[in-house]
Amino acid sequence: MPSVTEGIVPDGIVTSGACGNGELEALIASLLVIRASGHLLDGQRRYPQWELSNGELESLLKLGVGGVILLGGSAAELSLRCRQLQGWAWGPLLLCADVEEGVGQRFEGASWLPPPLSLGQLHARNPDQAVALAHRYGRCTGREARALGLNWVLGPVCDVNNNPANPVINVRAWGETPAVVSALTRAFSTGLQAEGVLGCAKHFPGHGDTSVDSHLALPVLHHSHQRLADVELPPFAACIDAGVAAVMTAHLMLPALDAERPATLSKTVLTDLLRGQLGFDGLVVTDALVMEAISQRYGAGEAAVLALEAGADLVLMPADARAALAAIAAAVASGRLSHQQLAISAQRRQRALQRVYEQQSPTAANPEHLEPDTQLAQAVLELSLQRQGGRLAGAPGINLIRLESCLQAPQAVPRMPALELPADQGFRAVLLEPRSPSPWSDAPEAPLNLAALGAGAVLLQLFVRGNPFRGSSAAREPWAEVVMQLQRLGRLAGLVVYGSPYLWQSLQTVLEPRIPAAYSPGQMPQAQTLALQSLGLGPGFGDTGADNDVCRDFTD
Amino acid sequence: MPSVTEGIVPDGIVTSGACGNGELEALIASLLVIRASGHLLDGQRRYPQWELSNGELESLLKLGVGGVILLGGSAAELSLRCRQLQGWAWGPLLLCADVEEGVGQRFEGASWLPPPLSLGQLHARNPDQAVALAHRYGRCTGREARALGLNWVLGPVCDVNNNPANPVINVRAWGETPAVVSALTRAFSTGLQAEGVLGCAKHFPGHGDTSVDSHLALPVLHHSHQRLADVELPPFAACIDAGVAAVMTAHLMLPALDAERPATLSKTVLTDLLRGQLGFDGLVVTDALVMEAISQRYGAGEAAVLALEAGADLVLMPADARAALAAIAAAVASGRLSHQQLAISAQRRQRALQRVYEQQSPTAANPEHLEPDTQLAQAVLELSLQRQGGRLAGAPGINLIRLESCLQAPQAVPRMPALELPADQGFRAVLLEPRSPSPWSDAPEAPLNLAALGAGAVLLQLFVRGNPFRGSSAAREPWAEVVMQLQRLGRLAGLVVYGSPYLWQSLQTVLEPRIPAAYSPGQMPQAQTLALQSLGLGPGFGDTGADNDVCRDFTD
Repeated sequence: MPSVTEGIVPDGIVTSGACGNGELEALIASLLVIRASGHLLDGQRRYPQWELSNGELESLLKLGVGGVILLGGSAAELSLRCRQLQGWAWGPLLLCADVEEGVGQRFEGASWLPPPLSLGQLHARNPDQAVALAHRYGRCTGREARALGLNWVLGPVCDVNNNPANPVINVRAWGETPAVVSALTRAFSTGLQAEGVLGCAKHFPGHGDTSVDSHLALPVLHHSHQRLADVELPPFAACIDAGVAAVMTAHLMLPALDAERPATLSKTVLTDLLRGQLGFDGLVVTDALVMEAISQRYGAGEAAVLALEAGADLVLMPADARAALAAIAAAVASGRLSHQQLAISAQRRQRALQRVYEQQSPTAANPEHLEPDTQLAQAVLELSLQRQGGRLAGAPGINLIRLESCLQAPQAVPRMPALELPADQGFRAVLLEPRSPSPWSDAPEAPLNLAALGAGAVLLQLFVRGNPFRGSSAAREPWAEVVMQLQRLGRLAGLVVYGSPYLWQSLQTVLEPRIPAAYSPGQMPQAQTLALQSLGLGPGFGDTGADNDVCRDFTD
Repeated sequence: MPSVTEGIVPDGIVTSGACGNGELEALIASLLVIRASGHLLDGQRRYPQWELSNGELESLLKLGVGGVILLGGSAAELSLRCRQLQGWAWGPLLLCADVEEGVGQRFEGASWLPPPLSLGQLHARNPDQAVALAHRYGRCTGREARALGLNWVLGPVCDVNNNPANPVINVRAWGETPAVVSALTRAFSTGLQAEGVLGCAKHFPGHGDTSVDSHLALPVLHHSHQRLADVELPPFAACIDAGVAAVMTAHLMLPALDAERPATLSKTVLTDLLRGQLGFDGLVVTDALVMEAISQRYGAGEAAVLALEAGADLVLMPADARAALAAIAAAVASGRLSHQQLAISAQRRQRALQRVYEQQSPTAANPEHLEPDTQLAQAVLELSLQRQGGRLAGAPGINLIRLESCLQAPQAVPRMPALELPADQGFRAVLLEPRSPSPWSDAPEAPLNLAALGAGAVLLQLFVRGNPFRGSSAAREPWAEVVMQLQRLGRLAGLVVYGSPYLWQSLQTVLEPRIPAAYSPGQMPQAQTLALQSLGLGPGFGDTGADNDVCRDFTD
C-alpha cells in the first residue's frame, strides 16, 4: 500500500531544514500521542477528565496529531473506533493500548491472559516451556491487536520485580531476576513482531524496585550505574537486540544518574544511557505525562518540551495537548529545541509505521472473526495453579470474597464463578471491597467480626494484584490474622488467592496444611473456575483434570 | 427493496395448504424468537445458560428461525451484531429488545431515559406536556433502535401499576390509572411507529396488580371480567387503536377467565378476549417461555404447542428451541395444530416486517452517527425531580450508598456522580449491596450499626426500583427506621432516593422537613448529578438551574 506509507510524513518536513508554519505545526503534532476511550460515543467515556471528546479528538487529529492510546470498550467496538480515529487523521496513526495481558485485558471479548509473572514463576521449573508460552503470548496479543486495528502494543514490561511491595509493577512483570525477564520479554517481543505489530519495552531504566506508585508521586531510586547495568538494564538490552520498536520512559528519580530531573525528562537517562550506551535508535516515548509524578511538578507545556529536550521522540498523554503543542512550537522558535531534532523523531515514527504497513494484510479488520485463544490462557492457568490441602466440604457456609473494586471490574461479573460455584454448594456470598461496611472487629488477634458475618465455615477468596491506585489497601488488611482466627475456631473452609503470589506466600506461612487452598495468578472467570474446580467445586473437574465444561461457558 | 420483502416467507408456505417437510419446518421455525447476547463473541455472554452460542444461533437461523431478542453490549456492538445475525438468516429477521427505557437502558451509549412512571406522575400536573414527552420518548427509542439494526421494540408496558408492592412492573409502568397509561402508551406507540419500528403492548391482559414476580412463580389475579374491562384492558385497546404491531402475553393465572391455564397458554385470553373482544389482528407473542412461571409447570415443547393452540403467533425464548420445533411439528402431524393456523401466523409476521421495510431508509446503520437525546432525558429528569429541605452542609461525613447490585450495574460506574460529588465535599463512601457485610444492629429502633460505620453525618443515597429478581430485598430493609435513627442523633445529612416513588413517599412520612432530600425516578449518572446538584453539591448548579456541565461530562 504505497499510498499509505508515502503519506506518513510529507517529505518536505523530514528533509527540509526550513518549512512553513503549518508544516512545523503538523510535524510537532505528529509527535503527540493523545488518549481516547475505546468507545465510540462521548457518553460512554469512563474517565472524561482524561479521555478527550470526539470533537476534540477529531480536531487534534486534523492538526496532525500522530498517535492515540485507547482504553475501555469491547473488542468489537475497538475495531470501529480505530477505523473512526484513522478516518479523522491525515496520515496513518500509531494506535496503541496498554494490553500487557492480552487484548482482552482492556477490550472485552479478546483473549484475556494471566499476568506475565505467572510465566516468570514457571520459568524456574521449565524454562523452555515458559519461553515458548511467552512467544505465543506475544503472537496472541499481536494477532488480536492487529485484527482490531491497533498497531502498537505498549509492552512488554521489562521491569525486574525484585520488590514484592511494588504497588504498580508486581504481577505485570515477567519475572524477579534479570535473566528471566530478559528471556521472556525477548520471546514476547519476537512473537508480537511476527504478527506485524510494534512493541514497547517499559519503563526505562527500570521500575521494578520501587515501593511508591508513580501514578501518585515520584519514586526515588538510589541505584548506582553498576547496579542498573547488573539488574535493571539487561531486559531492555535484550528487547533492543530483538528489534523492539519503542522504549517507554519511567517517572522515577535516579540521583546517581541525574540529581535534578526524573528519567522521563533526563538527557542523561534518555540520550546518554538509552541512545548512547544501549545504542537504541527506535522510538523513545514518555510514560503518560498526565501522571501526578510529572504533572505535580511541571506544567503541561514545559513537561513536553523537557521530554523532547531530554531525547524523547513521542510525548504520551500530555496533561493538555494544545498547551504542549504551543510550548513545543515556542521552544523551536526560541532555539531551545531544534527543528532537525523533531524531524529525526518524525522520521523514527515513520520508520516504525513502515514496519507495520510492510506486513499489513489487505483485509480489513473484522471482529466477528476473532477467536480468543482460550487454550493459551487455560494452559498458563493450569501450569501456574498452586494447590494444597484436601477438597472443600460442601457444608453450608460463607463465601467471603474480597475484591479490589466491585464497580465494573471485569473479573467481577454478575455470574462470576467465584460467586456461582460456591453458591451451588450452599455457600452464602459476602462481597467485600474497600468501600464496604467494615467487616473488622477491634481485636487484633481476631480481626474479623464474626458475629456480624453469621454462622458457618468461611471460604475466603482474595482478589489482590497490587494494582496502581489500589495497591496498598490489601496490605493493610490483616488476612494472615484472619486465617489464624478462622483456623483456631475450626471455621476456615478454604482459601483461594487470585493475583499476588506474595500474598499467597505470606498466607501459606500460617495456613494449616490440611486446609483446602489454591492460588491462581489470574483473576478472570476462567481462573476462578479452574481454582474452584481444583478444590472440588463444579462438575467433577477435580477428579480427572480434563472436564472443564463449566469453564468453557465463560470463555468459548 | 422488493427483493427483501419478497423473501420474508416463501409464497408456497403461506398460500399452500400442503407442503414438503422442509417447508413446514421452516414455517414453524419462523415463529420462534430466540435469545442472543448483544455481544459479538461467545466469551462475552453474561448469561450463557440463556444466551445461545454463535454456533447454535447460526444453525437455528439457517433452519429459518424468525426472530432474535437481544440483550447486553454497547450500541456500537449491537449494530455489528444485528448485521451478523441477519447475515446468518435466510430472510429478514424480527430483531427485538426490551428497551422500555430508551435503547441506552440495555445498550450502552444510546439514550438512557428515566423510567416511564416519571411521565405518569408528570401527567397529573401537566397532561399535555406528559403526552408530548411520551411521544418524543417513543421517537427517540424508535430512531435509535432502527439506527442500530433493531426493528421491534418490546414496549410499551401497558400494565396499570396500581399495586406499589409490584416487584416486576413498578416504575416500568406509564402510570397508576387506566386513563393515564392509555394516553401515554398511545403517544409512545405513535412515536415509535413514526420511526418505522414495531412496538409491543405488554403484558396482556395486565400485570400491574400483582405482588408476585412472574420470573419466579405464577401470580394469580382474582379479577372479574368487568374489573379487567375497567382497569387493565383500556391501555391495550388504546395501543391497538393506535396500530400497535404486537401484543405480549402475561404469565398470570386469571381464574375468572381460565381456571386451568395461565394467560400465555389460554385460548380464552388470547383468542376470545384479545382477538375476539378487542379485535386485535396483529402479532401475539408470548412472554419468555423460559421464565419459571411457565417452565416449572410445562416442558419446553408442550409450552410452545399450548401457546400456539391458545392463539399466539410467536413463541419467545422457549426453554429449548429444538424441543419446541419438534413438538410443534409433532402437533401438526397429529392434527393438534393446523398447518393453516401456522401459515396465518407467518402471514402476520410477514405483514409486520413489511411495515418495517416500507419505511426502511436505504442507508446502513452507522453507530458513529448516533446522537443520544440527552436533552430529553434531562427534561424528564428535571420535571420529575422532587426536593425538600435546605442545601447539604459540606462537613465531612459518610456517603452511604445502597445499590441493588454493585456487579456491572450500568448506574454503578467507577466514577459515578453519587460517589464523586459527595467525595469532593469530604464525604467518605460506604457501598451497600445485598451481599455486603451486614450494616445492621440487633436493635429494631436503631437498626443501623453506627459504631461500625464510623463518625460523621450520613448522606443516604438509596437506589431502589423494585426490579425483577431483586425487588423484595429493599422492602425488608428498615430505611424508615434508619431515617428516624439518624434524625434522633442529628446525623442525617441528607437523603436521595433514585427509582421507586413509593419508597420516597414512605420515607417522606418520617423525614423532618428541614433535612435536604431529593427524589429522582432515574438511576443513571445524569440523574445522580441532577439530584445531588439540587442539594448543592457540584459546581453551583443549585444556584441557577442552568449550568449542568458536570452532568454533560457523563452524557454528551
